[in-house]
Order: sequence, then C-alpha cells, then structure tokens
Amino acid sequence: MKKDIAELCQFITQGVYVVAVRDGERRNAFTAAWVMQVSFDPVLIAISINPSHYSYQLLKAGGICSVNVLARQQLSLAKHFGTDGLKDKVACCQWLEAVSGAPVLSEAMAYFDCEVSHYADAGDHQLVICRVLDAGRLNDGDVMLYTDTDNMDGSSEIYSDSL
Amino acid sequence: MKKDIAELCQFITQGVYVVAVRDGERRNAFTAAWVMQVSFDPVLIAISINPSHYSYQLLKAGGICSVNVLARQQLSLAKHFGTDGLKDKVACCQWLEAVSGAPVLSEAMAYFDCEVSHYADAGDHQLVICRVLDAGRLNDGDVMLYTDTDNMDGSSEIYSDSL
Repeated sequence: MKKDIAELCQFITQGVYVVAVRDGERRNAFTAAWVMQVSFDPVLIAISINPSHYSYQLLKAGGICSVNVLARQQLSLAKHFGTDGLKDKVACCQWLEAVSGAPVLSEAMAYFDCEVSHYADAGDHQLVICRVLDAGRLNDGDVMLYTDTDNMDGSSEIYSDSL
Repeated sequence: MKKDIAELCQFITQGVYVVAVRDGERRNAFTAAWVMQVSFDPVLIAISINPSHYSYQLLKAGGICSVNVLARQQLSLAKHFGTDGLKDKVACCQWLEAVSGAPVLSEAMAYFDCEVSHYADAGDHQLVICRVLDAGRLNDGDVMLYTDTDNMDGSSEIYSDSL
C-alpha cells in the first residue's frame, strides 16, 4: 500500500519552488512542491510546510516569504534548497529584495512576494495561506514539474503502511 | 496588473481534476485545478472550491468526494464538468462507487476517494482538507496540466485590477 499510494500521489501534479523566508536578519529558503493558488481576489497562495523545519520558525516569526518558481534545468537548486542542515544555505545564490522584505531568488523564472494571512492544520504538515503582495517574471524557461525530480526528497518512503 | 497577475499565476503548476460529490441520492461533479496533497501521514488532499457552486453544498452535506485525475486528451470532460448550470451533469459518464460512497469517474486516469476532514478560509474560495480513504489507477495516459486548457474557465478575467 505504501508504494501504491506514493505512486498514485504522483498523479497530483505539482511544480517545484524555492520558498524564501526572513525574520529580521535571519534568512533561509527551502524547496517545496506543495504550493497552489487558492483564491483569485485577493490572490492567495497556500503552501503546505513541514513545521519541524527551521524555515517554518522564520516564517512564523517574520510573517513574509517569497515563492520562487524553478525551471526544468534547475534541479541542482531544488536539491540544494531541499537539503536539511546546511550552514548558511542562502549563501549560494543572489537574492533580490521584494516589497515585503522577503528575499527573492534572482535565478528563478518568476516570484510571488507574500505575507502570511493565516494558518490551517494539515496532518503532518501545516498549511500557510499567504496573500500575494507583488509578483514578477525574472527569467525564461519551462517550469519544473515535481515528477521531473525523480523522488528527490525521498517522499515515497514517508508514507504510512496504510491509509 | 490584472493581465500580469493572471499570466504570472500560470507559473504555479496545476493538474486538472473532476471532483465528484454526493449527498444521499444527489450527485454532482465539477472541474478543479486547485487540488494538492498537503500531508503524507495521514494522506490529505486540499481542494480550493468556489463556495457559491451547487457542488459545494453537496460536499458540505455529504462530507465525501472523489478526486479524479484527467489525462491530456480529456479536455472535453474538463469543459463539460467546468460548465455551470447543466441539468443532470453526471449523466454523461459512467461512474464507479468508491468505498466512501462517492462516485468515481470510470474514464479517469486515477482517483482518490476522500472524506472531508475540515475547512479553512481562502479568500473568494474555501479550502476543503480531505482525508484519502482509498485510491486507485484506472486508465493509462499522461496527466493534463491546467496550462493545457488555455484559460478554459475564463479565470484570467476574474482577477481584481490590483493585488
């Protein structure tokens, strides 16, 4: 069942994003696939995030983030920001500063500058519903799909043995 | 800005799904793109739904739904279930019955049988967080991306003139 449900969940299509957070001088970023728009007016984006991650603390404290869209050829960036425990994880890259103050990944295809609106429970994750303050196109490319990453994050092992 | 934000939101990758609902003998189904997994254990799926739709009433009353994954060549199904006000909208198709009792679209690539866990506010939509009770593969194919539908739902006109 574990393998089955992991495979079936691949039919739920997701992109790949770097979510960058900031609380004062503390900055961090992480790779996320569970990102979707949830409202037209206002434009809201929901991110489902593992609350045990350091970035979650920064997001809760700072209340802002940017959602940066990765292109198909940016798998190394997806892996880098998907790795836990790296020291000074954001030092690898150039960052712009969004209207909110959130760092924006200059190499991304596009970004959404967000402030946290509210939270909702989501099992082993937490849903963060964000209001989009600004957005922009940065670079050309085709978007990366989560299925392009070939189970990069080892998520197929995370499922319970039964639903 | 309206055009800009509509275009930029296309960089947030989504699939295309038929969400089928049931309350006793009343059944309905609608096309949705704002569907994503939000938890591994338990497996939870979030759907952002327009609360003014009839299907939302059935979902609230019945507390169950199926999420049916459409394949790239199933644009006519996406259009059919994306059309409001059709009489007996589900008569077009063959349906299986999921464990929960929800109707499952037999032509879909895969389905997730869901019971509603809880709701969360999401601007002009409502987030429905569902627990996956069962899931299965039904047919071969490649998944449809929302960007394949060429603004089928006219959503680019829905945005406000400013963020």
